[in-house]
Amino acid sequence: MDKIPHPLSVIWTGEHLRLLDQRKLPIETVYLDLFTPEEVWDAIYTLVVRGAPAIGIAAAYGLYLGIAQVEDEAAFWKKLKHVADYLNSARPTAVNLSWALKRVQEKVEQQKGQPLAQLKAAVLAEARAIHDEDAEMCRRIGENLLTLLHDGMGILTHCNAGGLATAAYGTALAPIYLAKEKGWNIKVFADETRPVLQGARLTAYELQQAGVDVTLICDNMAGVVMKQGWVQAVIVGTDRVAANGDVANKIGTYSVAVLAKEHGIPFYVAAPTSSIDLHTPSGDQIPIEERPAEEIIAGFGKQTAPSAIKVFNPAFDVTPAKYITAIVTEKGIIRAPFEKGLQEHVSK
Amino acid sequence: MDKIPHPLSVIWTGEHLRLLDQRKLPIETVYLDLFTPEEVWDAIYTLVVRGAPAIGIAAAYGLYLGIAQVEDEAAFWKKLKHVADYLNSARPTAVNLSWALKRVQEKVEQQKGQPLAQLKAAVLAEARAIHDEDAEMCRRIGENLLTLLHDGMGILTHCNAGGLATAAYGTALAPIYLAKEKGWNIKVFADETRPVLQGARLTAYELQQAGVDVTLICDNMAGVVMKQGWVQAVIVGTDRVAANGDVANKIGTYSVAVLAKEHGIPFYVAAPTSSIDLHTPSGDQIPIEERPAEEIIAGFGKQTAPSAIKVFNPAFDVTPAKYITAIVTEKGIIRAPFEKGLQEHVSK
Repeated sequence: MDKIPHPLSVIWTGEHLRLLDQRKLPIETVYLDLFTPEEVWDAIYTLVVRGAPAIGIAAAYGLYLGIAQVEDEAAFWKKLKHVADYLNSARPTAVNLSWALKRVQEKVEQQKGQPLAQLKAAVLAEARAIHDEDAEMCRRIGENLLTLLHDGMGILTHCNAGGLATAAYGTALAPIYLAKEKGWNIKVFADETRPVLQGARLTAYELQQAGVDVTLICDNMAGVVMKQGWVQAVIVGTDRVAANGDVANKIGTYSVAVLAKEHGIPFYVAAPTSSIDLHTPSGDQIPIEERPAEEIIAGFGKQTAPSAIKVFNPAFDVTPAKYITAIVTEKGIIRAPFEKGLQEHVSK
Repeated sequence: MDKIPHPLSVIWTGEHLRLLDQRKLPIETVYLDLFTPEEVWDAIYTLVVRGAPAIGIAAAYGLYLGIAQVEDEAAFWKKLKHVADYLNSARPTAVNLSWALKRVQEKVEQQKGQPLAQLKAAVLAEARAIHDEDAEMCRRIGENLLTLLHDGMGILTHCNAGGLATAAYGTALAPIYLAKEKGWNIKVFADETRPVLQGARLTAYELQQAGVDVTLICDNMAGVVMKQGWVQAVIVGTDRVAANGDVANKIGTYSVAVLAKEHGIPFYVAAPTSSIDLHTPSGDQIPIEERPAEEIIAGFGKQTAPSAIKVFNPAFDVTPAKYITAIVTEKGIIRAPFEKGLQEHVSK
């Protein structure tokens, strides 16, 4: 994957794990070399690595580091379970973490009875498969989105659905990297995305590192940027797509969708098929998690609002399907009516 | 004016000037006592006092402090000019500053030949007149806006068009204070207003101090707050109203107006008649000033975006007249067609 244009969050050197220390972004690009599952646990726990897919990939390699030195088969199986449980405890609510660890364990269990060297190789092979498949899936989302775009356009994005959270490419940012590979001239506008500023800290960083023409704006500037005629498409990621096509994503996505509609700008959602949840009928059933008031009152190490002020700080919002031009997965492009399209898509 | 519900930015004690130190907001409420024009100059220069009307009022009192001790008429006239020029140099581009100083000078010049004590009294009387007239004008804007509101409603505002910038009441916040006086139950949502956070630092502060039910949100949450059905009116201030009813105001106002339209929520602009500029045909003729990138990259004492990232940081935007339900001045309420209404209104 040496053609990837942006800094990779997770690198397997062939011998050990190398992680981009995302706590130091966007100021410094520092990689940490990890040789033990304990180091990987710390890295997950302290947010050196973040983003669901990237965490899963790091943990799978961490599992390999945990069994690489065992000297007999009994120790291998014991250690495999022990290290998997241990790594899973670093962020117990991260679904991708337990999913990746479980997948490696199940795969190697199919090879029970094989020589120790082969079992070890199977663990590493599965970690690499998870890693490669994620990059491949993101690349396909990018290729599908790219068919909706053209050279010379302006694209606005919100939050970070980028390469740093995944093996490579990201989801919403994937077509931008592919456009860059093709030599297209794309201008990106990145919303800073208050309160946690993923747009400023991550999206602006990774696009800048990749040499993409990116302009950082405050969230409240999206409207005027559209009014100026500088944006021909909006692309965002998603946490969950409901069966009717309503999309949950980082807070502020809904406002951007309304603005896009008002300016006649297509609004695209980059969504791995795994984010489509046919068991959730509509966005109304998606609970809106609220985060600490402190993020708004003193988000940057300095208090900027009165003490004890009442705050509303939802982590995400729901964009109704009617504002969405297309939902784009690794398998293809879904347009309205979404209910039917999503059902057919998932069963493909 | 002891019934004013919010902290006053400018107080004349009868003997000297007392200014709320707005540099300490929203953390501390500290008043400074000023006895000399030098102290007033410093306060204006260092932004102890801010907001065009409040600066003008403070300067007028500063002029009085400068002549209060002179012992003969020749010294009076010399000092009057000298101190006015001196105070005017504290913020040379502030129109209200030079306007207020000129107004006091012209008024007292009409009394040339009167005894020294009367000349001094005329200076103080004119400063108090400027002070009282501003509070009265704001109160009238509030009364006119109040006729469009009702008990129990939710109101969203952007930036700070509040009492801190004026003698009292503010413009957009005036009806909220009057509603409070009437015992109405109004819920206010204050956009934090990136990049400079006037909503978090000033609006949230003064409404909280006044005991108004205020909830602070990030700018990108305005859409979801409206979608929840929590907002029945948007009220904002303005820097300039063009002849066709287009309105320039703090960056982000345009996005709020689009969101209000999408949710069927009336969008009101509180505008002193003096902000109506019939010589500017439309918003297209209003230049958009850009501010330093640093406000977005490191706005809170901590760098939160990559060094040297490209930034678009317009200080304000223009909301086209078609998004505006009514423009409300101290003289009354103007509705579409605005061109005709504004012309008639100014010549009233």
